[in-house]
Amino acid sequence: MEKINGNITKNTVEYGEFKNYDGQIVTITGYVHRIREMTGFSFIIIRTTRDTVQCVYSPDFSDYRFDERITEESCVKVTGKVVSSKDAKGNDRYEIQIHDIVILSLPAEGLPIVINKKQLDNIQLNTVLDLRPVSMRNPKERAIFKLQEGIARGFREFLMSQGFTEIRSPKINYAGAEGGTNVFKLDYFGKQVYLAQSPQLYKQAMVGVFERVFEIAPVFRAEHHDTSRHLNEYTSMDFEMGFIESFEDIMNMETGALKYIMNLLKTEYKNEVDLLHADIPEINEIPVIKFMDAKELLMKKFKYQPTDMKDFDPEEEQLLGKYAKKELNSDFLFVTHYPSKKRPFYTMDDPNDPEYTLSFDLLFRGLEITSGGQRVHDYNEQVAKMIKCGMNPEEFETYLMLHKYGAPPHGGLGIGLERLTMHLLGFKNVREATMFPRDINRVTP
Amino acid sequence: MEKINGNITKNTVEYGEFKNYDGQIVTITGYVHRIREMTGFSFIIIRTTRDTVQCVYSPDFSDYRFDERITEESCVKVTGKVVSSKDAKGNDRYEIQIHDIVILSLPAEGLPIVINKKQLDNIQLNTVLDLRPVSMRNPKERAIFKLQEGIARGFREFLMSQGFTEIRSPKINYAGAEGGTNVFKLDYFGKQVYLAQSPQLYKQAMVGVFERVFEIAPVFRAEHHDTSRHLNEYTSMDFEMGFIESFEDIMNMETGALKYIMNLLKTEYKNEVDLLHADIPEINEIPVIKFMDAKELLMKKFKYQPTDMKDFDPEEEQLLGKYAKKELNSDFLFVTHYPSKKRPFYTMDDPNDPEYTLSFDLLFRGLEITSGGQRVHDYNEQVAKMIKCGMNPEEFETYLMLHKYGAPPHGGLGIGLERLTMHLLGFKNVREATMFPRDINRVTP
Repeated sequence: MEKINGNITKNTVEYGEFKNYDGQIVTITGYVHRIREMTGFSFIIIRTTRDTVQCVYSPDFSDYRFDERITEESCVKVTGKVVSSKDAKGNDRYEIQIHDIVILSLPAEGLPIVINKKQLDNIQLNTVLDLRPVSMRNPKERAIFKLQEGIARGFREFLMSQGFTEIRSPKINYAGAEGGTNVFKLDYFGKQVYLAQSPQLYKQAMVGVFERVFEIAPVFRAEHHDTSRHLNEYTSMDFEMGFIESFEDIMNMETGALKYIMNLLKTEYKNEVDLLHADIPEINEIPVIKFMDAKELLMKKFKYQPTDMKDFDPEEEQLLGKYAKKELNSDFLFVTHYPSKKRPFYTMDDPNDPEYTLSFDLLFRGLEITSGGQRVHDYNEQVAKMIKCGMNPEEFETYLMLHKYGAPPHGGLGIGLERLTMHLLGFKNVREATMFPRDINRVTP
Repeated sequence: MEKINGNITKNTVEYGEFKNYDGQIVTITGYVHRIREMTGFSFIIIRTTRDTVQCVYSPDFSDYRFDERITEESCVKVTGKVVSSKDAKGNDRYEIQIHDIVILSLPAEGLPIVINKKQLDNIQLNTVLDLRPVSMRNPKERAIFKLQEGIARGFREFLMSQGFTEIRSPKINYAGAEGGTNVFKLDYFGKQVYLAQSPQLYKQAMVGVFERVFEIAPVFRAEHHDTSRHLNEYTSMDFEMGFIESFEDIMNMETGALKYIMNLLKTEYKNEVDLLHADIPEINEIPVIKFMDAKELLMKKFKYQPTDMKDFDPEEEQLLGKYAKKELNSDFLFVTHYPSKKRPFYTMDDPNDPEYTLSFDLLFRGLEITSGGQRVHDYNEQVAKMIKCGMNPEEFETYLMLHKYGAPPHGGLGIGLERLTMHLLGFKNVREATMFPRDINRVTP
């Protein structure tokens, strides 16, 4: 009887390993990214998992006539000698002198867009998105999402090192977590249910179980606005931690996570950072300003007349970002103590001034990337606050189980993965940093 | 101006660190799990992130009168001396002589169920599920989901070590991935859309970009049946890999992943494995049997009369599981070459016998936990197979972009996380291994 032993044999070599194979014969597999015919020889650029590899076809060392069926986007296996070359790309500057090419598969048609230039030139974003399965074959486009993997990975790795447990809350919910507006409704065997707007209520419940929890998962918001920084489905990176001494514990945890993430990107994702010319921020300390102090600063220093004294508009965020960079030498700025009226019902009011809350937003280069804060943990206090907010506590029986049966002081936050990726890469539109964006006009591909 | 430096100060000590603090004064935080009053002293068991810690209150060394407001499920900070004790629980057998207790919060009511016994005794599953936010406070219940974290973590860590990229496919889809049945329908700004049944089409598209990809995310199936092993929302662990030489590459990758997972559970999740008395399988080699040979075996050896020659029923899976254990000394069994008619349209037929496919299921102790196989990668072949299956290729234009513009030989699989957890722990019902299960009768809590 045949058996599978789980031994994974690897007959191919990655570009990063070429330095150990100088002068030796290796095999690589990949897509034919580009063919450039020169006088008497050809460059055949092979696109592999994470690199493009320059291969040279020449009658001098290639064992056979070039197979004319090989076109760009053919999948091939190339065998040849690793040689160092000043012309070759990449940090290590190795290329392959092709001995043999085996065709693994051939495309049925040529590509509808050019993907083998440095970047996708003069192609409208809508076309890029319509053609994601092929537009992402461009190495720079692909690097966006490899980098995005790194951000989520850094968030997870850091939190696990701090004793957090990864949870998976349900996306089909019986009620909207943060009130009933802007939720997608769903027919569920005759019942009306909702798609999760946030894991808020579940992650708080799990503080009572695991003390520290996080989740990286899709959330759904049926918002009608069509802006460059909103999506109707996005990835929320959430954490919630119990037994905090103050809401600064949450900000410290986030700062620690961001430091870890940025360091991870600079090391394990250096390829992609270089390719994208990503300006990865240095984080030492993050300055903190109170909401009302920020408003005063905007009015006095920037002569800005706010239209809303309870929240910031995008222009105010940008001005605060400029101020943080110029005066405080920081890409990040924590704004704390938002007005109670503008924060959700579960936010803890500041006992010293209950008009304001123990909450914060984090601005990164003038864009809000996080909302967070301490939560109410006392049952009677939470019930009273719900009633004050015009909510019916009886509808939140499950949520209130946490408070009724004992909850530690706790708090947490959420970070939009796509929005952070967008801003880190200096994009103007969050869709550029979203693999398959869903907005009011787009549910395909 | 205040600054946040991201330095995370930890003033408390975990139970696992007590051996370094023998005879010293430490502080711990946690829930009061249980209070046992003895003659002249009390045991106060504190439930921390991952352990319960025995603390002793006695006028001999406790600095104050016991605060009678402290009930079970109060959150407290305990300061005291670490001493070794033969009576104490845990591998290290340390307890704390309480010097001081500070109340951090108090519950509003006593618990509706007893959670501080070894396990939840005589409580119906429906009640356990209704009360998840509190029933999971039982250390054994909680351990189920910590172990589940370990399974997903092992899957991810192993695949990342093998060059896989983590992707996030959209859950709001314009069409059901595997045909139009059993999908939840959703009104999306006036358009009818669907919840993702599987990331199948997206992960295949991403093989053309990253070569090897995986995703761990929720999937949604609007199946009407109400069985002990089906859910309407569950976590699917999927991978897809390109440039395979045969479909055995996929089985080897899965076997490697399972070995890694089981080893991770035995080491980093030993606490939970012990608490749950989990029987973690040893994996050396996994035997392989062809579908038709398995049918023959069932008929000849077990005198079983199959009702369906294209698939197995649960009883047949159990018999095959017994056979694998008894005759082949394996908890796992790969069944390959399922009939073409029973596998999805993207499955590659066996070129030697096109009635059958290059596909497999993995049985674990007599239960199917994986479906996988090689996919069609040639455009014309895929279009022809779709037409043969009665599908309209024009409706799958985005999907077919992969094939049209070049796809390597590839394949992959999916594993249901909750089902694997259930079977690993010997549960009869998948809901026991699902934090917040959704089925035809349940969308709460």
